[in-house]
Order: sequence, then structure tokens, then C-alpha cells
Amino acid sequence: MDNNDQDMIEKDVTDSLGAQIAPEGEGDDVVFGLTDRYIQAIVEALRNGDEDVVSRELADLSEADIAELIEKVEDEDRQTLLQTHGDLLDPYVFSELDSGLRRKVLTEMPARQVAALISEMDSDDALDLIIDLPDDFQHEVIRFLSAKTRITLEEGLNFPEESAGRLMQREFVAVPQFWTIGKTIDYLRAATEELPDEFFDLFVIDPAYHVVGIIPLNRVVRSKRSEKLEDLKLEDIHPIPATMDQEEVAQLFRRENLTSAPVVDESGRLIGVVTVDDIVDVIDEEAQEDFLKLGGVGQDDLYSNIRGTTWARFPWLFVNLFTAFSAAAVISLFSNTIEQLVALAALMPIVASMGGNAGTQALTVAVRALATRELSSINERRIVIKEILVGAINGCIFAILIGCVAGFAFSNPMLGVVIGMALIINLINAGLFGAGIPIVLNKLGADPAVASAVFLTTMTDIIGFFAFLGLATIFLL
Amino acid sequence: MDNNDQDMIEKDVTDSLGAQIAPEGEGDDVVFGLTDRYIQAIVEALRNGDEDVVSRELADLSEADIAELIEKVEDEDRQTLLQTHGDLLDPYVFSELDSGLRRKVLTEMPARQVAALISEMDSDDALDLIIDLPDDFQHEVIRFLSAKTRITLEEGLNFPEESAGRLMQREFVAVPQFWTIGKTIDYLRAATEELPDEFFDLFVIDPAYHVVGIIPLNRVVRSKRSEKLEDLKLEDIHPIPATMDQEEVAQLFRRENLTSAPVVDESGRLIGVVTVDDIVDVIDEEAQEDFLKLGGVGQDDLYSNIRGTTWARFPWLFVNLFTAFSAAAVISLFSNTIEQLVALAALMPIVASMGGNAGTQALTVAVRALATRELSSINERRIVIKEILVGAINGCIFAILIGCVAGFAFSNPMLGVVIGMALIINLINAGLFGAGIPIVLNKLGADPAVASAVFLTTMTDIIGFFAFLGLATIFLL
Repeated sequence: MDNNDQDMIEKDVTDSLGAQIAPEGEGDDVVFGLTDRYIQAIVEALRNGDEDVVSRELADLSEADIAELIEKVEDEDRQTLLQTHGDLLDPYVFSELDSGLRRKVLTEMPARQVAALISEMDSDDALDLIIDLPDDFQHEVIRFLSAKTRITLEEGLNFPEESAGRLMQREFVAVPQFWTIGKTIDYLRAATEELPDEFFDLFVIDPAYHVVGIIPLNRVVRSKRSEKLEDLKLEDIHPIPATMDQEEVAQLFRRENLTSAPVVDESGRLIGVVTVDDIVDVIDEEAQEDFLKLGGVGQDDLYSNIRGTTWARFPWLFVNLFTAFSAAAVISLFSNTIEQLVALAALMPIVASMGGNAGTQALTVAVRALATRELSSINERRIVIKEILVGAINGCIFAILIGCVAGFAFSNPMLGVVIGMALIINLINAGLFGAGIPIVLNKLGADPAVASAVFLTTMTDIIGFFAFLGLATIFLL
Repeated sequence: MDNNDQDMIEKDVTDSLGAQIAPEGEGDDVVFGLTDRYIQAIVEALRNGDEDVVSRELADLSEADIAELIEKVEDEDRQTLLQTHGDLLDPYVFSELDSGLRRKVLTEMPARQVAALISEMDSDDALDLIIDLPDDFQHEVIRFLSAKTRITLEEGLNFPEESAGRLMQREFVAVPQFWTIGKTIDYLRAATEELPDEFFDLFVIDPAYHVVGIIPLNRVVRSKRSEKLEDLKLEDIHPIPATMDQEEVAQLFRRENLTSAPVVDESGRLIGVVTVDDIVDVIDEEAQEDFLKLGGVGQDDLYSNIRGTTWARFPWLFVNLFTAFSAAAVISLFSNTIEQLVALAALMPIVASMGGNAGTQALTVAVRALATRELSSINERRIVIKEILVGAINGCIFAILIGCVAGFAFSNPMLGVVIGMALIINLINAGLFGAGIPIVLNKLGADPAVASAVFLTTMTDIIGFFAFLGLATIFLL
């Protein structure tokens, strides 16, 4: 962006944060990404129909920058942007887009244009783009593709979702074991057209296309031309079955600090490669999923419209309704007790909420430890017992704290004793179920991140209300 | 493990899951990591004092495998293992260990032994190990280090915690711009001793040690010897200030799909390199932190003892106490109303809990979007308005559902109307504060992941109880 443009745009823009008009904040702690002021300036230009300014700016931005721009502008501006400048965008801009928004944007484009984008991409990125599309539209797009691209994509679609087969890149460098370093480098120089755009390791293969070793490129460049590949101390091989879940693949990479790993078919034949840059995205995606699930959100709905978001939030709220009704049913059992001592109504949510919070803590640690496989049958009993004891100790501490406050506030020492006892019971209960529910769900093959929280709060609500109101009925009436 | 040992160990071991005694399950979906049965077999050997068996097994395991073993066995077995075989372990076993447990294990070792481990490691890994230690012990360990190692470590310790300076590796490959590919390869072959163990890219520098370009190794191996470095189309450079936060660094890597990036000092001079394998760990760590914070857990306490875990959980529960007491205070205001219509006591937790859950959903999406910078001042207003509308719509749906059930169950249609109105109010409130609280905390420079949830449940409890009991007082008495 030259100074002229800056001046021109600056007139129309006010920014209370005082950021400079430059795509990336300089001098601030922001060293990448777009500033809000810059986005506003582009939006102004779009609305004023200054197509030249927009084109020039887009030419200067990276794919990730343009994706951020598309994500952050309002719906109408996004449509204007894509209609006027959509055909100039690099296909990889769409790879960088949030997947929900990408689906929306692509389905609004003509199938022929989407097919053109896909034809320009590497096999794994093309696959990534097409699998998100609604089935009808997917078929329509596929009709416009060349036979070769279509076959590659259809092969990819045959692998299970979120598997190594979907993640892998079909372009890799494989060299026979009996070659020397010199011969390998000569081959790489001659074959430069056929090589993948990026690669970090060479796979050494036997005549049956089985991987017998992996050579990082830095070993290639530092070895003498005369050295034989089979004489190099090869890295350990971790061949990945094409059907392996991507989360497993990510754990393997992280655990063994890999940069790339060969993907093999059922007969052990090399068919592709997964590289660490794909893994970065997987780890991010899986972490995001777990985070959202813990908060009761099925999928990232930041860019969904109101109907989509409402619908995405509904199931979790509906499930929680049963927890709420069962808690209400327990309280109803004790309506006589509450009628006689209405202070109980004020205090009972304290018992339930302390239990819910303590249980969520135990649950969070357990869900995370199951995801990283740090929790397994070898230590589960120890962990559950620990959580019960932690619950008991915190239960005692809070029993004293809350018991004193409640007994004093309502001038009823016995009320303090009752709430204290109920708290101890409910925090022990919270430790038991907080750690226990995810473990059991995991054993049953369910995803502990999704379902655990409902079961847990049902338990801590029911036991909490029951213990408090039950003890009150016994000791206070 | 040869068959003899398998037979020998198998006698002592029963495993209801029927896993084979092999470090890694075969045929199952487990293709890495240790099976529980294998760990049990090692523990048996340890307890029987079969040191030969243990040594042989340890020699066959990777660093990550041994770390898993140390993590999963019970305290006494861990002590036996470390006392009898600790000095045979590769230093990188400790790098793979859970950081809480690593601190515990290392502080139980003599300082001299820890110093010996650190001396064998690369600068960044050594730094990683030593920063976790308690200050006293750290100083003691440092006394046993050679002057050179000590200086490198102390330089590293001068960078802020979780900064690029702490993350970077000081070993990198920098070459002058006027070299050819041939000269570069000759240099790499000759300098093999001085090169880092692993590298993916070469940095092209000018005489002032400023980075002018980055060449991926695959470009080196596929180019002709005669080509000049300055003629290659160089990758975009993303120099990272040494003080940049590691989370920012990770976002930059993810956004621009980098494999390595140069770290520079204030004058732009190249001082180190961050590689994508370090970033994998950072992303994992940051995702774990956010996940735990959302669940009200300050740090991963899976391996802490009971006292440590109790203490780690206490602050969050204590903060929640204020939420619980304010809710109790609101309810107390309406004790007359509740005395006259005790059904209110049973129904009021429904209003609060639906609000809490809906608010947590909005909050989870907002916290995540702030972390990934998808939410900023350009779209915050839109997001908050959307959440309010989503709350209003779900509020209406649940108002009808719950209103009908409540009106019918207590044969009091007006009670149904009141709870319905309260639900609509509280779900709108949940949308507003669920999205609004993290945004405001973020603007104030606080970490939205930690504090948001308490503020939110305080709001949904207070407004929920107040709306329901207040409306009941007006319409039902």
C-alpha cells in the first residue's frame, strides 16, 4: 500500500483505537493478521465501488490475510467482494477459510467455478475443499472436473472421514535402498517437475514398495555423494495405516516428534505421506472440538447465521432440560420441609452449584487425560480414589466456611451443620462421578467430552438437593 | 522382548482385556504407546527385583515410551525404577515427561545427576528442563554445569517466560546470499559437526546478520549446483522478535504454514530458529491450558498428589462461592413469595440452569474466537447481537416447552406463563453476557478463558432467580 492510498482511505475512516492503516500493525504487539482499521478501509472502498483499490490491496495480501478479510466483513460486503473479485482469488484462500463459512461461500458460487478452483489444487487440499460440500452440489462440481482429478478425489473419498487416507498427500519422494546420495541428488534435480511442492524426508523403499527407512533431507545434504542410502543410520519408521484416525496420527507425531510419516495400504505398500504441517491443523482442530464440546457446543458456529446457531445450540439445552426437571422433581419431594423452613430454598442452590463446579474440575482433568491417553485402566482406580479424597477434603473446608456463614446468617446453628454435611457428601459425589463418568463412557466407546457433563450435573444436582433437603428433614423439623 | 521373557512374565499377569504382552498392541487400533498389560509386566519385574528384565525392556523402548511408563506406574514403583535404572535413561526421557511430574522426579534426584542430564541436551531442551525446577534447586544444579552451558542457559532465562527466545534453538544454518547451491552443499558436508541435529530450512543472511531469505532444503536438493542463492525465488520471511509470546508464534506458523522461522533480536540480527516441531508442542500446551481453564482447573494436576490437587482446585471453588452466596441472597429476598407458593422453589433452579448452560455455550464460542483472533472489534457487536437473538429464540422455544410442563404439573397455568417469561429474559441475558463478558475482559487485558465463567454464572443465577421470583410475586400472589 503506497502512501497515496493511505491518505485517500484515511479520510473516510475513524478508529478509536488509533491503529495505523496498514494490513499488519507495526510497532504494536500485532505482527501478523489484519488490523480492524485496515478491514474497515477495504470495506469503505468496496461500498464506494473503488474496485482498483480493492484489487491492488488483495494482490498484496497473503491467502490467510484474504481469508481473514472474508471472514470478518459483514454478509453483504462479503457477497460484493466475492462477486467482484472472487475469480481473482488464489484457490488456497478457500483452504484457509473457516470450514462453515467456506461451505456457505462455495455453495453460493457456480459449480463450474468451484471445479476450476479445485483443479488448481494439490490432491489433499482439493479433497479437503470438496468433502465439506453438500452431496448434491458435490456431484455437480465433480461433473466439471477432468477424469484424472475426479479419480484421485474419488479414491480419497473412499477413505473414512478424518482418517490418515484423507489427510495424506499422494505426492512423495521414494528412492530405492541401493542408491547412493549422489544418485539421489541427481534424481531429485532431474525429476524436479514430478516432485511434490514441499517435502522434508525421503522414503527408502524395497522393490515391493514397502518402506524400509526414512531419510530427513538434512541428512541428504550433509552426507558425501559416495555414501549409500543403506549405510546411513535410518530413522525409525512409523508406518500409518490409511484408515487410522487423524487424532491418533497426530498423537503419534507428537509423541515421536516426527516431521513426516509414510501412509500404507493393507498390504503395507507406500501410498502417501502425512507431514507435520497437516498435523498442526489436526491438533488445532481436535483441540477446538474438545473445547467446544466441553462448553456444550457441537461445532464452531461463529460464522453461522442466527438460525444455524440457534439450531446448533438447541440439542444441548434440550438434554440439560432433563437434568433440570429431575432436580425439580427431587425438590418437589421436600416441599413440606421447604414450607416449614424457607431458608432451605435460598441455601439449596449453593450445595448443588459447589458440587457441579467441583465435579466439572475433576471431569475436565479426566476428559483431557483420556484424550491424551494419560488415563487408562492401569491408573484409573488411583485417579478416581484421588478425586474422591480431594472432594472430601475440599468438602470439609467448604463445609466449615459455608456452615458458619449459613448458621450465623439464619441464626440457626443446626442449619449450618446440615448444609456442611450435605456439602461434604456432594463434593465426594462430585469427585467420584467427575472422574468416573468419563472413564465409564470411554470404556463404552462413547466420546467422554460430549456426554459427561450432562450426566455429571444430573448427579451433583440430584444428590446435592437430596442430601441437603433430606438431612434438613431429619435434623431440622 | 523374546518369547522366553513373555512366557516368564505371562504367568504372573492376568488381563481381562486379553491384550498381548508387547509394548505396543498389535492388531488392535493401538499402534503406539504401551499396553496396560505390558506396564503391569514391567511393574511385576520391578517388584520381584528382576533388574535384567527391566534393563532389557528399557533399552528397547523409545524415550516417549519410557516417559509413559514412568507416568503411569504407582509412586513406589516409580521410585524403585528411577533409583535402580535412572542413570541409564536417555536425558530426553525427561523432556517427554509431564511437566508437573518431571519437576517432582528431578527435585528428588541429586543436583549433580540433573546437571549431567542437562549437559547432554540441546540448548532449548536443557532450558525447558531447568526452568521448571524450584529456584533453590535450579541454582544448585547450575553450579555443577560447565561455564559454557551455564552462560547459554542464563541467556535463555533472560527472555520472558513462554517467549520465542525461550522456545528457539540457538543452532541454525545461515549462509551468505552470494553463495551458489554447490558451495552451500559443500559447506554443509564439511561443517557437519557444527550443524544442528535437525533442520528444515537455510537462512540467507546479509553481512549484518539480517535474514534476507529462507530456502527450504527441498529447494536445495532439487536445484543445480551452479544456481546462485539470490536467484532462487525465496520464501517470504516472517522474522520473529525474541520477546514474542509463544502463542503468537504458533498462530503465525499455523496461519502462514511455516516449517521454521528466524528469531531476531531488537536490531533484527538472527539469533535463533523456531521449528514447526516446537510449535506442535506449543499448540498442544495452549489448547490444554484453555481447556482446563474453561473447566475451572488452573493446571493439569493428574500427577499431583492429593494435597497438590486439593490446593489447585480450591481457588476456583472459593470464587464460585460468591456466585452461590449472591444467588442465595436474591432468593432470600423472596422468602415470603416462596412460603406462599412452594412450587417456586422446585422450579427456580430450572431457570438458572438453562441460563447458565445457554450462557456457557455463547461464552465457549467467544473465548475460542478471541483466542484465534477471529473475534475482534470489527465484528464483536455483530456477534453479541447474534447471541442475544439466538438466546431470545431458544428462550421462546424453551418457554413454551417448560411453561406447558410446569403449568400442567402444578395445575397452575399462570405459573407456566411466569416461568416462560423468566426463561426468555434469562436466555437473552445469557446471550448478552456469554458473548459480552469475554469481549470486555479481553479489552481490559484479562484472560477471558479464566474469569469469564464465574462472572457469567453470577449473572445468569442472579437474573434468573430475580426474574422468576419477581414475576411470580407480581403475577401469582
